[in-house]
Amino acid sequence: MKAALISIGDELLIGQTINTNAAWLGKELSTIGIPVTTSWTIYDQPGDIKESLDHLMPKNQLIILTGGLGPTKDDLTKHTLTEYFNTSLEIVPEVLVRIEDFFKKRNRKMLDVNIQQAAFPVGATLLHNYHGTASGMWFEKDGCIVVSLPGVPYEMRGIMNDEVFPRLKELFETQELYHETLMTQGIGESYLAQEIEDWEDTVRADGLSLAYLPSPGIVKLRLSSKNGRIDSDKINTYFEEILKKLPKHAYSIGEKSISEILGQLLLEKNMTIGSVESCSGGTIAKELVKIAGSSRYYEGSIVAYSYKEKENILGISHEDLIKYGAVSEEIITQMAEKGRKLLGVDICVSTSGIAGPDGGLPNKPVGTVWIGVSTEKRVFKICLNFGEKRERNISMTALSALNLVRCEILGLNS
Amino acid sequence: MKAALISIGDELLIGQTINTNAAWLGKELSTIGIPVTTSWTIYDQPGDIKESLDHLMPKNQLIILTGGLGPTKDDLTKHTLTEYFNTSLEIVPEVLVRIEDFFKKRNRKMLDVNIQQAAFPVGATLLHNYHGTASGMWFEKDGCIVVSLPGVPYEMRGIMNDEVFPRLKELFETQELYHETLMTQGIGESYLAQEIEDWEDTVRADGLSLAYLPSPGIVKLRLSSKNGRIDSDKINTYFEEILKKLPKHAYSIGEKSISEILGQLLLEKNMTIGSVESCSGGTIAKELVKIAGSSRYYEGSIVAYSYKEKENILGISHEDLIKYGAVSEEIITQMAEKGRKLLGVDICVSTSGIAGPDGGLPNKPVGTVWIGVSTEKRVFKICLNFGEKRERNISMTALSALNLVRCEILGLNS
Repeated sequence: MKAALISIGDELLIGQTINTNAAWLGKELSTIGIPVTTSWTIYDQPGDIKESLDHLMPKNQLIILTGGLGPTKDDLTKHTLTEYFNTSLEIVPEVLVRIEDFFKKRNRKMLDVNIQQAAFPVGATLLHNYHGTASGMWFEKDGCIVVSLPGVPYEMRGIMNDEVFPRLKELFETQELYHETLMTQGIGESYLAQEIEDWEDTVRADGLSLAYLPSPGIVKLRLSSKNGRIDSDKINTYFEEILKKLPKHAYSIGEKSISEILGQLLLEKNMTIGSVESCSGGTIAKELVKIAGSSRYYEGSIVAYSYKEKENILGISHEDLIKYGAVSEEIITQMAEKGRKLLGVDICVSTSGIAGPDGGLPNKPVGTVWIGVSTEKRVFKICLNFGEKRERNISMTALSALNLVRCEILGLNS
Repeated sequence: MKAALISIGDELLIGQTINTNAAWLGKELSTIGIPVTTSWTIYDQPGDIKESLDHLMPKNQLIILTGGLGPTKDDLTKHTLTEYFNTSLEIVPEVLVRIEDFFKKRNRKMLDVNIQQAAFPVGATLLHNYHGTASGMWFEKDGCIVVSLPGVPYEMRGIMNDEVFPRLKELFETQELYHETLMTQGIGESYLAQEIEDWEDTVRADGLSLAYLPSPGIVKLRLSSKNGRIDSDKINTYFEEILKKLPKHAYSIGEKSISEILGQLLLEKNMTIGSVESCSGGTIAKELVKIAGSSRYYEGSIVAYSYKEKENILGISHEDLIKYGAVSEEIITQMAEKGRKLLGVDICVSTSGIAGPDGGLPNKPVGTVWIGVSTEKRVFKICLNFGEKRERNISMTALSALNLVRCEILGLNS
């Protein structure tokens, strides 16, 4: 069984919206053994929609369309599909009631355009949308299933989980593809490739395929097997070799964020954490809080962005700030130590750097970042440089800081 | 002139990486009047790459491929294109020197795989990569230009800006499409559509096309004209009507974040800002700091996530926390006021809510969020509900809080 995705929307092609739906669908479908052969993005225009179906239906047994089902006048997909599958629209009373309920529950007035969302192509299977007002549609023709879903991500995901996956699992015995991912932080793709060159030859010779997936600060290694879950132990064993070989960088088997892994570690060690942030501006706090249940180990943070806050809230002396500069080993040490005591936490991470685009100095160019990690035992300090882009500097600082905290707890920082 | 995009990479189809390159290329190309007719994502496999080119080259004058050019063994695109265009690879000494330089500057050892990155198809135009080690390639055949670029976003963007756009502008006199966007916050797509129904009919009758682009907390309105920049004043005038009609929601003509617009407003009014965050966990701070130059108005934040920090850092009494609960009008008021004084800022925004998935109460379900905005004059307070998803709650809280600060400064909060 093969699937193709069609994402509909001018906003995707002119780049006003990034296509996250295709990524989610690709991941979920491949997990249940339905490979996505290709993913197309097209305009919300009848001609383009029909041509894509003509091209992709003969080559695939499943097509999932997303987008074009909104209540507004620029959404043409429902009408186009109704015509393509030679049927007509009729109001479905049951859906109308649900839409009315949807608005009642939220204390909002129902609009005329929303009534039209209860119109549905006769003969298609209705896929209930419990998170919004546009129903999903399931057509079948010439051995191919065509599913049309709204483009709003959480509505699309809801209908897939509630209505589409159960039907797909019932209809098809799928050959399961198996993927697993190893996460690394703070090592570039080429270096990683060199470090694991022999290992890479071994896993490939063993019939597994390997991919490097680099993004700023993180390189994921993905091993895939066509034999399905039966190879999971083998893949795990291979990845454990990397965890042992590169413990400062390889932090998780399975796709997890550093803050999630760090959270588990803090719970295990029964430790609390806080942060004192300057250049990372709350990003470390945000990453820690993102994890459900983080209140069990995360206490709070101080974003001391200006000199004033470094003095007022943290009690760093004005003289020291002038003498050493805010981006210095001395100040980062004080930030981490004073922060740990003020917040009353077991481990406190501090950041201070020049995020850019302005503020660079000859001996401290844009991208220079000091990170400190304070525990009762010591303050570990490191100076890094992440280059010239502000957003990249901020996110790299936060990722590196979180990984350095992990390494400090595990005794890996020299 | 029409363009098509081909994004290459297993990681895109199985959803491990979200395709941001296609969005960026779509936006940049449409701005210079080259519409992207379709965007395909395919596997890094010779057969798929060749078939896609066979299909798309006759229908387009420009194809841009991204991805598959990395140094590692899973990257097959350069070899495939070399074969497709009937040529062969040769080491280019100039590129080899640049790659050596690249590693020298970063104090890193050059690897064997990197030397192979200096191999280039004979007869293709070399597109220099000043941000990485994989060069871009420019082929021409049967009236179609085929450009192949690395998939790492900042490298791809660099080569487009340095090498591809200047060539395209020289080669083609392009008909300019013109898009402009109006940003709104805190109003759903259907409501917005109802509020501007008559306006919508008018703009469509005037030959413009309108799209609604919803994402959590933000709905963008996009007006497009096929007449190019000549219609920019007209579109601006239409959008100004919406700014006047819906000042609490419509916050910018042109695609800007609320934190950027708020930053401009704070500079105009010569005001400083800080935040005291519980459920938003530093996200407001992060959004403010993201803007270059924010140090001119942003002082700092306190993330008081636990009761302990609300007591220790902010000085809220334990009795009040027990009596009212952390998610309450009373506590949010104290957080905003005490925060404003402690941070020494003109305006301070506070958040406290139940982000979920746990912690809901019968009278305060998951998603309940209090936001406070304190100035010298008063504390404005509001209670909202954003539903059940943790990440969505956090980001919606931050967006709403930033917009409420904007409205408070402009005297729009009743």
